[in-house]
Amino acid sequence: MKNILVINSGSSSLKFQLIQIPSETVLASGLVERIGLEGAKLHYKTKNFSGSREFAVPNHAVALKAVTDMLLDNEKGVVKNPEEISAIGHRVVHGGNTFSKTTVIDEKVKKAIKNLFSLAPLHNPPNLKGIEVAEKLFPDAPQVAVFDTAFHSSIPEKASKYAIPDKFYEKEHIQLYGFHGTSHKYVTENAQNYLQQEKAKIISIHLGNGCSITAVKDGKSIDHSLGFGPVNGLIMGTRSGDIDQSVIFYMVEQLGYSIQEVSEILHHKSGMYGLTGYSDLRDIEAAAARGNKQCQLALEMNAYRIKKYIGAYAAAMNGVDAIVFTAGIGENSSMIRKMVCADMDYFGIKLDEKQNELRSKEIRKISSENSKVKILVVPTNEELEIARQVMELVS
Amino acid sequence: MKNILVINSGSSSLKFQLIQIPSETVLASGLVERIGLEGAKLHYKTKNFSGSREFAVPNHAVALKAVTDMLLDNEKGVVKNPEEISAIGHRVVHGGNTFSKTTVIDEKVKKAIKNLFSLAPLHNPPNLKGIEVAEKLFPDAPQVAVFDTAFHSSIPEKASKYAIPDKFYEKEHIQLYGFHGTSHKYVTENAQNYLQQEKAKIISIHLGNGCSITAVKDGKSIDHSLGFGPVNGLIMGTRSGDIDQSVIFYMVEQLGYSIQEVSEILHHKSGMYGLTGYSDLRDIEAAAARGNKQCQLALEMNAYRIKKYIGAYAAAMNGVDAIVFTAGIGENSSMIRKMVCADMDYFGIKLDEKQNELRSKEIRKISSENSKVKILVVPTNEELEIARQVMELVS
Repeated sequence: MKNILVINSGSSSLKFQLIQIPSETVLASGLVERIGLEGAKLHYKTKNFSGSREFAVPNHAVALKAVTDMLLDNEKGVVKNPEEISAIGHRVVHGGNTFSKTTVIDEKVKKAIKNLFSLAPLHNPPNLKGIEVAEKLFPDAPQVAVFDTAFHSSIPEKASKYAIPDKFYEKEHIQLYGFHGTSHKYVTENAQNYLQQEKAKIISIHLGNGCSITAVKDGKSIDHSLGFGPVNGLIMGTRSGDIDQSVIFYMVEQLGYSIQEVSEILHHKSGMYGLTGYSDLRDIEAAAARGNKQCQLALEMNAYRIKKYIGAYAAAMNGVDAIVFTAGIGENSSMIRKMVCADMDYFGIKLDEKQNELRSKEIRKISSENSKVKILVVPTNEELEIARQVMELVS
Repeated sequence: MKNILVINSGSSSLKFQLIQIPSETVLASGLVERIGLEGAKLHYKTKNFSGSREFAVPNHAVALKAVTDMLLDNEKGVVKNPEEISAIGHRVVHGGNTFSKTTVIDEKVKKAIKNLFSLAPLHNPPNLKGIEVAEKLFPDAPQVAVFDTAFHSSIPEKASKYAIPDKFYEKEHIQLYGFHGTSHKYVTENAQNYLQQEKAKIISIHLGNGCSITAVKDGKSIDHSLGFGPVNGLIMGTRSGDIDQSVIFYMVEQLGYSIQEVSEILHHKSGMYGLTGYSDLRDIEAAAARGNKQCQLALEMNAYRIKKYIGAYAAAMNGVDAIVFTAGIGENSSMIRKMVCADMDYFGIKLDEKQNELRSKEIRKISSENSKVKILVVPTNEELEIARQVMELVS
């Protein structure tokens, strides 16, 4: 029996779960949000306690110290001393060509993660920060990195290569790496179990702050919408998703932006936020319902992009048995699911509108009985997937 | 009865046809190739003559003068004096937001075409050159511009807008414009007539030096793979097609290329050429047949990209009645057609392998009898389409 502390460290947040393995019991879970911002808050939950506390959290070190204090607290804690935490699992977004599987962290690994900053400037730096503060607080526990890119290492070359001069592939290792692999792996395995179908063609749609879609054939990722960096594919909160590269050349050569400014625009000022001024989908849905045309169009664009990827991946696999919605938006926005599944009967995709409206934290089917393709909502659990992989490695 | 001279002026070539309207008789046709290069040649054909001549052609003015001399030639010519040429129709690739339909050319129009150089740096400059030399040789004939972008003006906003800050759409008019519109319009109209089905969902695949794919619903373009510039979408001879924009940022910020160099790479050094070192598909097919792995992979990537677009557009239209192959590669490469249509039976796409191998200059069906989706090869004829549109405008 081991307790694995799973840390998902974002730019202004630190999510955690303490998971007992092999029982897979969540002893404690929570989130520090708005790190470095006004109104920072620690949310903390155990079997016997649930609450939150607002306090100054200037950085990730303060955040993780507060989490650790709670875990060890006489009253609300779940462990007596730090040694009861056997290992720490860190979500790391980009493993580049260096990491194709879950890896124990040492100085060399940290350096390699740092070398990959340019590939995932939104994610790898806070991931590394999480590792560094955890090493100080838990010097004796093995620190393990679980890479979002690893699940996609099965993507064949015909899908992972770009049609640019071969030297950029051979020498510079520019290719599709993909992200959200831990989530896509978890939800498609759950979907396969739910469908009792090991050999399945599944399209997994992860819609959160970041969004991506994966074609999974017989348990293996064979294509994916995020690529070399985290900005391609579906329309995201602030990221553009697919865009004609000519737009970038035009912005620089004709409109006078620097390449850094264009990168900043496509990463942080685009997507749903760029189209509407809102970055939270709930605000956009509410505004659309009030008749805001920009918000209505942005939702249509978002759903249309997803539809096209479903079609593309059905072609890539010559079929589709199930589509899976997951992550914050995928699990909770019945409107997006409805828009995506509308007018898709050519593919055998038919939504059960009543089932679609029911809220639940369980895996569930929302396709109608005569839908050839099963439509599932599968709550993702990257923390559990990370804990399982950490356990497998350290035991 | 009018004679329309149609000019398609490329960077090193000038294609022409003299077409009698309304009979649609081609009085003469041909091509000056390798303009400005060694081994320039004029190919010229009439009802009674066919031949070619190699001579020095330093520029487009010399090329068009040679064409005009042939058209007026006592022996091989088809008209007695320049006045018998009623109007000149020019293919112009990019009409931007300025031109959404066929337009008579004046100084203002030429200036506007020049202002659009940055949007189609490979095409608009030689298009304008063709106009300028034609004005000098035929000062009394109306010069008409037929824009490749015009057919795509029916694409709805949800497909033509990019998910970037709204000001780039509203103020800078950055959006999908599309290209090859004249060809896609011509072949889908022919396909509709052939199928005797006016309300049809057709996916039109134009594979030439440039490649693009269009979803055409009831005669209207509703989505298209080229976008703001001519480099997105399918893998082309030297152009990359779709690529994760992070690659561009990486090439500039990490590898030290200038944005101009990256643009040059993606326009002129990428695509099939970048992957294999060959830019002519026939060479690549031959090398692949000899066992060249790079060429085999490049062909697979090319076909895979097309497959995914077919799937995406089937989703966009919630169905597909026919797919159409056209242009040099689309009409002549049975291998690419076979690779694209393989393993697509989920979509009801089934090729007749024997029909696929037959060569013909006529429209033909190459799907098997039990294929739900008709697969057609439709020879494109942009010149005839241009002549029809010019006639409609000037009469």
